[in-house]
Amino acid sequence: MSFTGLRKLISAKDAPICVGLDPSLTAHPDVGKLLEFNKRIIDAVAEFVPCVKPQAAFYEARGLKGLEVLRDTIRYARERGLYVLLDAKRGDIGSTAEAYANAYLQAGAEFECDAITVNAYTGSDGVKPFLESAVKYDKAIFALVKTSNPSSGELQDVPTSDGESVYVKMAKLLDGLGDTDHLGYVVGATYSDQLAELRTMFPQTFFLVPGYGAQGGSAASVKPAFDGRGGGAIVNNSRGIIESSDPQAAVVAMAAALREVRA
Amino acid sequence: MSFTGLRKLISAKDAPICVGLDPSLTAHPDVGKLLEFNKRIIDAVAEFVPCVKPQAAFYEARGLKGLEVLRDTIRYARERGLYVLLDAKRGDIGSTAEAYANAYLQAGAEFECDAITVNAYTGSDGVKPFLESAVKYDKAIFALVKTSNPSSGELQDVPTSDGESVYVKMAKLLDGLGDTDHLGYVVGATYSDQLAELRTMFPQTFFLVPGYGAQGGSAASVKPAFDGRGGGAIVNNSRGIIESSDPQAAVVAMAAALREVRA
Repeated sequence: MSFTGLRKLISAKDAPICVGLDPSLTAHPDVGKLLEFNKRIIDAVAEFVPCVKPQAAFYEARGLKGLEVLRDTIRYARERGLYVLLDAKRGDIGSTAEAYANAYLQAGAEFECDAITVNAYTGSDGVKPFLESAVKYDKAIFALVKTSNPSSGELQDVPTSDGESVYVKMAKLLDGLGDTDHLGYVVGATYSDQLAELRTMFPQTFFLVPGYGAQGGSAASVKPAFDGRGGGAIVNNSRGIIESSDPQAAVVAMAAALREVRA
Repeated sequence: MSFTGLRKLISAKDAPICVGLDPSLTAHPDVGKLLEFNKRIIDAVAEFVPCVKPQAAFYEARGLKGLEVLRDTIRYARERGLYVLLDAKRGDIGSTAEAYANAYLQAGAEFECDAITVNAYTGSDGVKPFLESAVKYDKAIFALVKTSNPSSGELQDVPTSDGESVYVKMAKLLDGLGDTDHLGYVVGATYSDQLAELRTMFPQTFFLVPGYGAQGGSAASVKPAFDGRGGGAIVNNSRGIIESSDPQAAVVAMAAALREVRA
């Protein structure tokens, strides 16, 4: 679904929140119990949030059985009316990027999602096939711009010769593709200044903001991600919800905290 | 297998060649025939090359059945004594990168390979979990530095404030991890000058050089990838071999062409 659709879902629930379905191998060693775990989380939060974000790595790490759980989790969440954003950070060139787009964005694909995260280090010809599929099938992609991890600055913050930084160049490259309804940016909740900078530079662009909770992001740190009307961004929380003793209470509390800063 | 092992395999066959198992969706529409196709290619080339490189995207695009073919292709190639490098370009942060490493590098994993390609845009904490697994299980990783596609320069060639470029910064960041036996670079066959530059800057680093053949790379263009003894690199060719009417003759001819430029 494009961001036009996602914005409506967010408004309907008044919660710009994405629940990360990232079941760690240590907390969830039994793949046989994983689908039920995900369904319980989805059932608990579906009334209150518009979006879930399965992290592909945790399913791939469990082999084919894990990938079956991923497929069935995606289907279950979509049946419940949730927007499913697959965090797969795929990225390649030309026909290979097209194959990844087929895998996750094409209508009827076994792993069909509403959106996927992509890594555009390869440049625009690695992104265009994803964007074309997104337009064709009413989907969206989020490209990594400034990631939430402590070492993200090692490459992304490198100053360029004209006084910008690599992540700003990445954002401009993506902006040059000219489609803010299907192409958004990933900008970490842990980098409040960069969220503010990018929001100012790209007022129309939709942001996925991971890193809320366990990674250190907070309502205060993500405040600059929102536009003047409190929109334009969705904030992900994984462990803080799925490992909570009460996931429903956790999303309700997070929605309230975000309502404060979006006002 | 670390590069110590890969170098021995290359020497034994006198062919620094990797055969890309990239079955396109248009040329190979029937997933039911894909494993047999891959086996026929593997059987044709195993005596002459040390390595095959399945491209994950083409298997993911076929859903779970495609991923079964990927698993069985990896197993078949390894049983035939080939080094299996999975081209998956995975990249994420912290525990997520660790989950990807578990999926593809851990001993006994369903998709266990000898090496995997990674995308290090997230910085060193996205690479270290892969590198730790590589060391632990005698595997290797290849990180994207300068990719072979026409638009790779849009981000990778951006000049930095100290007169370098983003891809050189990436290479230095990776070099700082200090393990040239388990961490190599991906540098495209289509960028001969950059191959020469990076070979000079990083004389000990092992290169994976994709883009030979259909993408425009040639024996002449990859010549600078090799070190003074004709080693230090492996060159990938996908369509030029797997879509050839005689894959065996194609690898034999490619080995001869590379022997000329490595002399």
